[in-house]
Amino acid sequence: MSLPTSYRQWTLANHPTGKPTYSGSSATFSLETKDLPSLTDGHVLVQVLYLSNDPAQRGWISSPDQIEPERLYVPPVQVGEPMRARGLGKVLASKAEGFSEGDIVQGNMCWREYAVLDAKDPAQGLRVAKELPGGLSITHYLGALGGTGLTAYFGLVEVVGCKAGEKVVVSGAAGATGSMVVQIAKHLVGAANVIGIAGNDEKCKWVESLGADKCLNYKSPNFASELRDAVKSAGGCDVYFDNVGGEILDLMLGNMSRHGRVAACGAITGYNGEAPLPMKNYFNVISMRLEIKGFIVIDYLHKAMEVIGKLVGAVKEGKVKIGDENETVVKTKFEEIPGTWLKLFEGANQGKLVTAL
Amino acid sequence: MSLPTSYRQWTLANHPTGKPTYSGSSATFSLETKDLPSLTDGHVLVQVLYLSNDPAQRGWISSPDQIEPERLYVPPVQVGEPMRARGLGKVLASKAEGFSEGDIVQGNMCWREYAVLDAKDPAQGLRVAKELPGGLSITHYLGALGGTGLTAYFGLVEVVGCKAGEKVVVSGAAGATGSMVVQIAKHLVGAANVIGIAGNDEKCKWVESLGADKCLNYKSPNFASELRDAVKSAGGCDVYFDNVGGEILDLMLGNMSRHGRVAACGAITGYNGEAPLPMKNYFNVISMRLEIKGFIVIDYLHKAMEVIGKLVGAVKEGKVKIGDENETVVKTKFEEIPGTWLKLFEGANQGKLVTAL
Repeated sequence: MSLPTSYRQWTLANHPTGKPTYSGSSATFSLETKDLPSLTDGHVLVQVLYLSNDPAQRGWISSPDQIEPERLYVPPVQVGEPMRARGLGKVLASKAEGFSEGDIVQGNMCWREYAVLDAKDPAQGLRVAKELPGGLSITHYLGALGGTGLTAYFGLVEVVGCKAGEKVVVSGAAGATGSMVVQIAKHLVGAANVIGIAGNDEKCKWVESLGADKCLNYKSPNFASELRDAVKSAGGCDVYFDNVGGEILDLMLGNMSRHGRVAACGAITGYNGEAPLPMKNYFNVISMRLEIKGFIVIDYLHKAMEVIGKLVGAVKEGKVKIGDENETVVKTKFEEIPGTWLKLFEGANQGKLVTAL
Repeated sequence: MSLPTSYRQWTLANHPTGKPTYSGSSATFSLETKDLPSLTDGHVLVQVLYLSNDPAQRGWISSPDQIEPERLYVPPVQVGEPMRARGLGKVLASKAEGFSEGDIVQGNMCWREYAVLDAKDPAQGLRVAKELPGGLSITHYLGALGGTGLTAYFGLVEVVGCKAGEKVVVSGAAGATGSMVVQIAKHLVGAANVIGIAGNDEKCKWVESLGADKCLNYKSPNFASELRDAVKSAGGCDVYFDNVGGEILDLMLGNMSRHGRVAACGAITGYNGEAPLPMKNYFNVISMRLEIKGFIVIDYLHKAMEVIGKLVGAVKEGKVKIGDENETVVKTKFEEIPGTWLKLFEGANQGKLVTAL
């Protein structure tokens, strides 16, 4: 088989103002064809198969005028660089120890057809993606067994130190991260009680099927009192895993037990510059000695392999269920990669949005 | 000398609705005369000399309808009980080891002329108040060398673990707690930089004289950009000691360094049920991996003696300055104890408000 000598790539051409675009003279992204560098020692040549789509990618391409680079999670993408994206690929040729032709690998693929990657560069994070049990698609390494599962695990276990017997509340419980938090809390940590919060009754049923003792619909007109009653019945709330921020966070501040901890994982309002979050119950942070801890999963990636092993083991034992609900895989032509990514911001996907090339 | 056999006491007669009162048929407090119990083993008879006035006392007498008792710092005062207050007194007679006639003691005196106190009851917190160096008034044991100094020390050192070389910002820096935070951060912890925030230029000068590298007036029209610039010049902010909450907290969330910690000590807005705090910069909690930790000094009182010893030592060495600016002592007739306490809510006092009987 002859190896490719060139590849196509989506390059950041302009920092977007408003919604990113991928056609026209001032487009955010431009499609380029590049020569592949020759394969040197310690490197692998990879064909990109799947790309992860993440809201955080929007921040990486923001204009430095809009956001100070040092306040981003990771360095921003510079104009002229390929659009950064995690993904899965197939090794076509390897000069790196531990990687063989035919291996499926995950790492920082970028929006490229092919890539020559340094196997030891931590920024690439290249590793072999082993087959999953029960015929599960390897794309779950981009979601439930990748970023979202790790976010759930590290947030719950490392950031706020959730322990067996504690009472947990999770918002966004039907989401990619939240559904893993529910299962990890109940089935791995051994929480005494898990209350989920989700956006409709059907989602709530699903969350309860995953092991939540109760799941509340935040669109209910009596949500505030239902939440209060549910937490009281559970005997309190030691850990709140917050995927949404805003009003639900504020309500939870008024429902936490003394010395309760909030794992601050997401705040929807933050992304779009909507009205400031009201914090009617902030004083509880002081009077109840609460702790709100923000975190980003990338700070914990040095422990990722160990935790992915645990999660895969839990899937094998049937303790953690993952399946089609956890991802939406969109078969995409190379020319349409930005278009699939933009679907993220329309909220059309259920679970992790994955681009299949 | 003949010992007293009765004493006067201000009793909680009714939970207040609105501003507490102390005359009329539905008054919050009523003045009563009681018989002194006989002095039994392990007890001391104390004449109350000084009373501490604290905003938290307002919470202790709130109606159970207005605030759930389990969300208070300490058990509420029940109708019929003496109004709780820390204070200083003189031992008139002792049947308790370690306490002798003539000793000055501090503890939970309540609004009483005399009290028979159990020397070992942790709720009384009775201990001998040794003379202070440099002719300082013992009333500082109720303020800078008591609750406020301990709040400053524990918040900074225990709650957020401030270390030498870190950069610190303190709001309410001219206040009783804030002025101690500035000095402890700079002169005991060895912070690389301390920025104070206060309400006028005169206060700012005083805060700088205590050791702050800079103190900013939050009433300046350019406060937000001045704060930003000051933090940038300092090379960031690792620890924010928050005495005020609200808008300044929100601004600081946008100025913290990665992994910065907020010691949440006070939030003015919380007491009076004003408009909810806006949190425009909340997302920084996540993106910058911040930690907001609420605390109440009473959780740390088991280490109080050790820390008071440190603070008194630091005063002796000239590292920490305390003086008349730290307190307002109001000579008060017994009948007027509630009136002096109510001055707290008029903001008339500078530093700790102390009632001298």
